Amino acid sequence: MISEKMMDFVKNSSSIRAMFEEGKNMAAKFGAENVYDFSLGNPSVEPPKRVKEAIAEVLEEDSPNLVHGYMLNAGYEDVRAAVAASLNKRFGTGFDESNILMTVGAAGGLNVILKTLLNPGEEVIVFAPFFGEYTNYVKNYDGELVVISPDTSSFQPNLKEFAEKISEKTKAVIVNTPNNPTGVVYSEKTIMALAEIMYKAQDEFGTDIYLISDEPYRELVYDGREVPYLTKYYENTIVGYSYSKSLSLPGERIGYLVIPSEAADAENIKAAASVANRILGFVNAPSLMQRTVAKCLEEKTDVAAYDRNRKLLYENLLKYGYECIRPEGAFYLFVKALEEDDKAFVERAKQFHLLLVPGSTFGCAGYVRLAYCVSQDMIERSLPAFQKLAESYQ
Amino acid sequence: MISEKMMDFVKNSSSIRAMFEEGKNMAAKFGAENVYDFSLGNPSVEPPKRVKEAIAEVLEEDSPNLVHGYMLNAGYEDVRAAVAASLNKRFGTGFDESNILMTVGAAGGLNVILKTLLNPGEEVIVFAPFFGEYTNYVKNYDGELVVISPDTSSFQPNLKEFAEKISEKTKAVIVNTPNNPTGVVYSEKTIMALAEIMYKAQDEFGTDIYLISDEPYRELVYDGREVPYLTKYYENTIVGYSYSKSLSLPGERIGYLVIPSEAADAENIKAAASVANRILGFVNAPSLMQRTVAKCLEEKTDVAAYDRNRKLLYENLLKYGYECIRPEGAFYLFVKALEEDDKAFVERAKQFHLLLVPGSTFGCAGYVRLAYCVSQDMIERSLPAFQKLAESYQ
Repeated sequence: MISEKMMDFVKNSSSIRAMFEEGKNMAAKFGAENVYDFSLGNPSVEPPKRVKEAIAEVLEEDSPNLVHGYMLNAGYEDVRAAVAASLNKRFGTGFDESNILMTVGAAGGLNVILKTLLNPGEEVIVFAPFFGEYTNYVKNYDGELVVISPDTSSFQPNLKEFAEKISEKTKAVIVNTPNNPTGVVYSEKTIMALAEIMYKAQDEFGTDIYLISDEPYRELVYDGREVPYLTKYYENTIVGYSYSKSLSLPGERIGYLVIPSEAADAENIKAAASVANRILGFVNAPSLMQRTVAKCLEEKTDVAAYDRNRKLLYENLLKYGYECIRPEGAFYLFVKALEEDDKAFVERAKQFHLLLVPGSTFGCAGYVRLAYCVSQDMIERSLPAFQKLAESYQ
Repeated sequence: MISEKMMDFVKNSSSIRAMFEEGKNMAAKFGAENVYDFSLGNPSVEPPKRVKEAIAEVLEEDSPNLVHGYMLNAGYEDVRAAVAASLNKRFGTGFDESNILMTVGAAGGLNVILKTLLNPGEEVIVFAPFFGEYTNYVKNYDGELVVISPDTSSFQPNLKEFAEKISEKTKAVIVNTPNNPTGVVYSEKTIMALAEIMYKAQDEFGTDIYLISDEPYRELVYDGREVPYLTKYYENTIVGYSYSKSLSLPGERIGYLVIPSEAADAENIKAAASVANRILGFVNAPSLMQRTVAKCLEEKTDVAAYDRNRKLLYENLLKYGYECIRPEGAFYLFVKALEEDDKAFVERAKQFHLLLVPGSTFGCAGYVRLAYCVSQDMIERSLPAFQKLAESYQ
């Protein structure tokens, strides 16, 4: 028998599996070109050409036992130094290799830092809508998730409620900007106000409260939008980064944590995070990919392609009568469902061969998420379906 | 502040760090060629040449979005099918892709299966001496580790004590053969007796008890020794495999779990393990390496090189008066310390520039582990130091 905790997951995973099967069946029945799958955040843009070259270079330049062998659990020191230098150049920070821990993607990094920080029953605050996996990551370490309800006018965090709910039990706050699922970028003003609430709470409760910034979408921004680097606004910030989206390498599981020296208890956090990386079974971030990304720190994904998709989909959906916050980053649109029940709306959309994700998955019912990291061609073909879906509600 | 659970780890990691620093200092002081580091299980043999070719082929043959993109959390279906077919060919098993879950090394796989199986307080039995990380992996999921004391005459598992300690609380038993740290291979007779005890306990308690076979050293055997494939002896066996040693790819974190269809609750275990892989933050095994190992299933590491090291070190240590079980697999020697306190013996060895690991790390005080996955040259240079260390006790 599997563990009781995992029972619910199995039920849930069979419904996801059912959805997946349904998508495949729809494609078989109606033709793949007539099914419009907006459900997955799997980058459609190819990795920069430099990635392939860099892999070849690493394999030529270094001995196979170095490239594929064990290194410190925190990662190769030269790779970590290169990441630190690149951040310092871009953001005027003062990191060195001791502040960087290479991780198995951002998901690995978040698990490592939550294992490092959380005692059972300590609270982690998230702002709805939020990436649903945070619930699982926090539960893995017996933490309590505290959800701040969404501000659906702007999808900036609801700071009034945040100030009320932050407490002596709060150990960490997770932010995700540019945001999955809304595409919203938290403004500098928001960040400063959020930091002020956290500083005040630390003073009031005499605790350290960590701000965990989950940043897989940092490089995906449009219209020249700036994404503030959070360690500069709040000392106890820990950054989780991933190359999944910025270099289109989601399958490779490569990212890093930044643990700034000015964070409270930084030395212990660094040491414990390195141990957590080991004992959770990651051991270290994949070695060839560590050395590869170190050669691609200046590379950029084709943001223009996502931007074209964004405009095409956003402008047409508005035209058909949908309501949606204009995304400034990431590759998602968060669209108001045309009926109260977002799951019912997702079911209705399937009749038009549109595969969407219910907002309730992100703690924000009444909305759906569309991932536009797909081909422009598919978006074009899908537009009549969106129009008919809207008309079906008139 | 970091979590209380992690506090001890930080203390412990600073002592490991201190040892690491001491090794570096010794190398600086006496010259790297005069320090003999037998502490790490990092393969000295290069990966087979085919690995590099296979990486290049994968990058040429498949689209970058396939090679580096997301796939099912369990791994690419074609890779899993290839792994299953290779096992069936070698061991006469009847697996298909649904029985294989690609993992972030064996460490990732063990965490996935323990997360899948364990309710808090359930017991996991291990046989001393055992890989110390099992303690952490079991604690990660609030399980209780039950250690069976070593049989130091043969280093086969102590089945008498096993039969006494297996109970209605036992959820799993971990075996590791060829064994780290002893190099012993569990005989077929041992496996059959162990399986019989487990079948009997299942009947008596009306429970399912899983045998978890941790097999990173399966391919490293000497003198034509056979390693029984455990799913054939006990239905509720789950295998954790890694390419770290067999292809010398420890940094790449690539391995798999085998969940046979005949295991109790197999369908739920498969589904839950796939979810556990995701929510623990692994998400999936590194994608390029999945596709690479699928092309290297017939490849073998240079076992002859390890065998030369084994004989050279083993025969000379016996000559100097050390006692040691003759290893039949893996790349470790488990040597009786020349004084009761293995930690004191390790300290004394350092005076002769020998870096060893105390047996108490493996739940077996009074012994030390030597990893002979090093250059033959270093072994030759180290022999006088071993001789002097022995003489210092006369």
